[in-house]
Amino acid sequence: MRAVKLSSPSTLTLEDVDIPEPGPAEVRVKVAGAGLCHSDLHLVDLGDAWPAFGLTMGHEGAGIIDAVGVGVTSHSVGDAVLVNLVWSCGTCRACVEGRDNACEVTGGRDSFPSAPGLTADGAMAEYMIAPARHCLPLGGIDPVGAGPLTDAGLTPMRAINSVLDRLTPGATVVVIGIGGLGHVGLQILKAICGSRLIAVDQDPTKLAHAAELGADVTLEPGPETAARILAETGGYGADVIIDFVGVQATVDLAAASIAPEGKVRLVGLGGGAYPASAAIEAPWGVNIQRSYAGTRADLLQVLALAAQNKIKVEYTTYPIDDFQQAFDDLRAGKLRGRAILVP
Amino acid sequence: MRAVKLSSPSTLTLEDVDIPEPGPAEVRVKVAGAGLCHSDLHLVDLGDAWPAFGLTMGHEGAGIIDAVGVGVTSHSVGDAVLVNLVWSCGTCRACVEGRDNACEVTGGRDSFPSAPGLTADGAMAEYMIAPARHCLPLGGIDPVGAGPLTDAGLTPMRAINSVLDRLTPGATVVVIGIGGLGHVGLQILKAICGSRLIAVDQDPTKLAHAAELGADVTLEPGPETAARILAETGGYGADVIIDFVGVQATVDLAAASIAPEGKVRLVGLGGGAYPASAAIEAPWGVNIQRSYAGTRADLLQVLALAAQNKIKVEYTTYPIDDFQQAFDDLRAGKLRGRAILVP
Amino acid sequence: MRAVKLSSPSTLTLEDVDIPEPGPAEVRVKVAGAGLCHSDLHLVDLGDAWPAFGLTMGHEGAGIIDAVGVGVTSHSVGDAVLVNLVWSCGTCRACVEGRDNACEVTGGRDSFPSAPGLTADGAMAEYMIAPARHCLPLGGIDPVGAGPLTDAGLTPMRAINSVLDRLTPGATVVVIGIGGLGHVGLQILKAICGSRLIAVDQDPTKLAHAAELGADVTLEPGPETAARILAETGGYGADVIIDFVGVQATVDLAAASIAPEGKVRLVGLGGGAYPASAAIEAPWGVNIQRSYAGTRADLLQVLALAAQNKIKVEYTTYPIDDFQQAFDDLRAGKLRGRAILVP
Amino acid sequence: MRAVKLSSPSTLTLEDVDIPEPGPAEVRVKVAGAGLCHSDLHLVDLGDAWPAFGLTMGHEGAGIIDAVGVGVTSHSVGDAVLVNLVWSCGTCRACVEGRDNACEVTGGRDSFPSAPGLTADGAMAEYMIAPARHCLPLGGIDPVGAGPLTDAGLTPMRAINSVLDRLTPGATVVVIGIGGLGHVGLQILKAICGSRLIAVDQDPTKLAHAAELGADVTLEPGPETAARILAETGGYGADVIIDFVGVQATVDLAAASIAPEGKVRLVGLGGGAYPASAAIEAPWGVNIQRSYAGTRADLLQVLALAAQNKIKVEYTTYPIDDFQQAFDDLRAGKLRGRAILVP
Repeated sequence: MRAVKLSSPSTLTLEDVDIPEPGPAEVRVKVAGAGLCHSDLHLVDLGDAWPAFGLTMGHEGAGIIDAVGVGVTSHSVGDAVLVNLVWSCGTCRACVEGRDNACEVTGGRDSFPSAPGLTADGAMAEYMIAPARHCLPLGGIDPVGAGPLTDAGLTPMRAINSVLDRLTPGATVVVIGIGGLGHVGLQILKAICGSRLIAVDQDPTKLAHAAELGADVTLEPGPETAARILAETGGYGADVIIDFVGVQATVDLAAASIAPEGKVRLVGLGGGAYPASAAIEAPWGVNIQRSYAGTRADLLQVLALAAQNKIKVEYTTYPIDDFQQAFDDLRAGKLRGRAILVP
Repeated sequence: MRAVKLSSPSTLTLEDVDIPEPGPAEVRVKVAGAGLCHSDLHLVDLGDAWPAFGLTMGHEGAGIIDAVGVGVTSHSVGDAVLVNLVWSCGTCRACVEGRDNACEVTGGRDSFPSAPGLTADGAMAEYMIAPARHCLPLGGIDPVGAGPLTDAGLTPMRAINSVLDRLTPGATVVVIGIGGLGHVGLQILKAICGSRLIAVDQDPTKLAHAAELGADVTLEPGPETAARILAETGGYGADVIIDFVGVQATVDLAAASIAPEGKVRLVGLGGGAYPASAAIEAPWGVNIQRSYAGTRADLLQVLALAAQNKIKVEYTTYPIDDFQQAFDDLRAGKLRGRAILVP
Repeated sequence: MRAVKLSSPSTLTLEDVDIPEPGPAEVRVKVAGAGLCHSDLHLVDLGDAWPAFGLTMGHEGAGIIDAVGVGVTSHSVGDAVLVNLVWSCGTCRACVEGRDNACEVTGGRDSFPSAPGLTADGAMAEYMIAPARHCLPLGGIDPVGAGPLTDAGLTPMRAINSVLDRLTPGATVVVIGIGGLGHVGLQILKAICGSRLIAVDQDPTKLAHAAELGADVTLEPGPETAARILAETGGYGADVIIDFVGVQATVDLAAASIAPEGKVRLVGLGGGAYPASAAIEAPWGVNIQRSYAGTRADLLQVLALAAQNKIKVEYTTYPIDDFQQAFDDLRAGKLRGRAILVP
Repeated sequence: MRAVKLSSPSTLTLEDVDIPEPGPAEVRVKVAGAGLCHSDLHLVDLGDAWPAFGLTMGHEGAGIIDAVGVGVTSHSVGDAVLVNLVWSCGTCRACVEGRDNACEVTGGRDSFPSAPGLTADGAMAEYMIAPARHCLPLGGIDPVGAGPLTDAGLTPMRAINSVLDRLTPGATVVVIGIGGLGHVGLQILKAICGSRLIAVDQDPTKLAHAAELGADVTLEPGPETAARILAETGGYGADVIIDFVGVQATVDLAAASIAPEGKVRLVGLGGGAYPASAAIEAPWGVNIQRSYAGTRADLLQVLALAAQNKIKVEYTTYPIDDFQQAFDDLRAGKLRGRAILVP
């Protein structure tokens, strides 16, 4: 079968490899579509620093089970499934408490939990192997476009679920960045809470998109943006700010417009730093967290919202042979929505 | 009556002033004891920067109501009460949602909520005026030593309540700094959860105190401390770290020993900064918050624990005439427990 | 001024009384509209059993403040306000913990908390007196029709907030009874969660209304209804059932279609009994609660949703002189939406 | 090997059977001890009604893994483990959300989830087969006496965790029945909260035991007991009542002494009924739930408390050959603590 591999530093190649066999408790999925993600570009750009040359790329996979390993009773050949991003162990304390994206066994302080395309062969191939328990039923959702739900859907879902107690009617939520993850985040917020939503993006077409998706206020970033947010909240600041960009300018905007005891979630990996200091400084009490991936419960919620058409991830398909074009288009920012490789 | 005032930059004086009268919805408290706090030293040290010369000092007051203003039906002359630290409005959204330490009306992004000794005359006097609703019944607790419950009790209670979901049996909590607030925090943790408690302090006598109070492990800070904490948690890190010191070294220790998705609470005002970054860095997902004061619900819990002798604040009394000695002893670190001025 | 009084057993009269003066911490509200509620009929029907003849009726009031008592600084003449239903004390443990509808001081095991129209003169008059802290700013909401928000809005909000942890995407919620409270409950659910909503009502026009308001499934009650709900949930049962009727047939329907560990909330006062037994019986683990009124935080949320047009209470106005007609129409079931008396 | 089987209606026999082999994802445990439970007597007493004659009894098992099935990487031969009571699927929505005792796949509205000794061969044998994921590491806990942790420990843990939000300092909790489950429940409460604890039991020696374990108040049941509980709570009622007996008298006591919006948990299977009615009746708002078994997260917490010696289950061992004596002693109420069969 064909598989897109990061074969040597910064080099992607389409290789012909054997169709893999599922081991015990595993299934083989005939891939219907594999999403591309900015973090895939990160891997390519890591150059020599990436420690796992030869792995098949792709952590956003969905398809149809076509073989099951020994002992698999939960799934059958023919099931349409989404492959979970986070291959947690399922039995450690973190997993059992529902924090499986912080799995103690497959991840830890120094590494992220196991994931396809990162620590095992991923979805950019005709077939992939996955643990049966990490294959979630798609129901009626089209598997070709479903892959991004496991990252572009899951990641905002987790960030949002981590601030759920504050998403009351009367609260104000700022979403910074209405791109691949942000536009899904906005849809999730619209679907699951009655808070007021402010969208921030430097691209007017994305702001127009945000308004279509239900943003109550749309703002371009600039010297007056923090003041505008404060004005919208009686000077008190936003209850929640989710930053899907994460560069210093957006993190600074968050710091300048969050309420006391408000919650800031950093999702985008732009490298900006939030000034979390043990000093008498206002606004005090701000709760800051960098959000990463999500839990199985989050992913079930994403699937439920998608099944009800409450969230949609836009995408463009590319034949797997055109993988390089897809990566180039992603890097050039030419895509509206997600790129999906179809094997 | 006599009152300790910050009369001019960095200058405390004992003055003779009129006994104040309570207005509507207020009461007058005959002060039984007023605690001293490191933040009182901060005010003195602010010099010219302090904007409110002439105020009576003291935010840790308790005593007996001896006059009630018009419209007060909730309290009677003779009631022993603790004066709440945070004079929130009680009706804004933050107050109504139980986040009254983030009151929108009396505080905000740029200032802390109203408080005695900070924005109104405080407790270091023979009498003080307080809103009736901010006077909490002491029950059988001795009012002379009760004052510190409103800060040295309240502040750790809030920090702890903000991480309550993680204080399960099986979790590990690190308490850094077993001083005025930390030794109360340790007692609260011991009383309200079944988690394992690790105490860190550079003073061996304080560590011995921590062991008496129920710490399961006691550690002096040093180059091996983070490794020791990781070893105690199977390499995964602590679920919760509460830093009652807040200097760079202790914040760094927290960063080096917290688990992924663990919770760090910065209580001490030592000025250390936590590296909260929107970048791929492990351990990711750490939740950071600077904790400030507490809510009325927190304070009721502190009073309940004190009434059941589950927490005790140690203290030494000084006659109000010796106020300067008390401030000097506090600054010199000569106190075991809290200093209390008795009018 | 004119006031509708329950002057003697089962007898409502329009009387001419003095305009009342606000005491300390109270305000006087010029009533813009006063809603009628089925529980008003209950009071009339109690006959001799009602202990408080001579009180002005009406617990759903809104209007404009036209006088403030001594010590009121939070409100001003001219403010448009909604009068809270539950006149809790604000300082007991229940109040401070946000369970003010279970206030220990103004209510208790044997009585409900104080309320206008029940324990004090109510809103069916030209003016009413209310505690300042129980008057919530209306913002731009029209005061004439706002009164029902304090009961027909608040009561479903509380029932819904008490099951909030289960209102996830993927969950199924059954709303029984799409009348005065139920149609608001459905709007609230639509606004604040992404769960699937099943509406049950015996009146096809109300089911059509439910579909307009966003119910995903509408069902008439009958011998197959429980089976239909089970079929909609893969045989597992609904996560949440809110019964706004509460007769035995609807409670039985809830028992027959709730999931294990599902949550049933009884709001309607139809007298039906749920079989909560300490025996091995399936479905086990069902969580049952009769919901009553709501908290101040709930009411702020109702106001926020109304201000954003996410919930609307339909109503018909009657001049206060026609109060008897309004009560008759309510009793006859002739009303679409709420009846509002306009003084 | 020898195994205690319910071979025909109401008849227990010790049989000699083949040592079983673990299938994929299963392990074989050499049983160190198997607890007896009142529900084992229920099975015997069901007579013809029990549908599964021939199963090995015992749902409280612990021991040492001596063989692992295909695909098991999480466990090794030699590991000391506790076998979980609830053999949930681990992948359905209920499981993923942490409500695995309400598993949709292995249980449902009409049946309890799979369990050893109930739907599969249990622990009263020399060896038992269990799913690997339902074997939890015992750490240093002695496997001989550990079995009861999976029921007598787990069941109170779940009941308590279901009321955790109300176990604040200042709250009052009533524990009815200080027997096999109740005495563990009391220890758990003592370990994980700072609430005041009232123990009720008709046996003075059990009340004395309760006092040793930390109950603040001990009461014998009688006509004055409800009044005593009300007196202890200022007339307001208890915040939480956990009934480990569940006969009508104890359920009535709960109804007569619970606070408005208090939480009642029915654990004992005495068949008493709580009057949950959709009528205006005080105390309104009481939250009622029959608690069943527990979740994996609960069981990890039980193990953590046991490992720290914060809970201890008393027990008496019997050789497996004396199984009939053990059942007889249990039925006769002669046991202090749990009976454990040692193969």
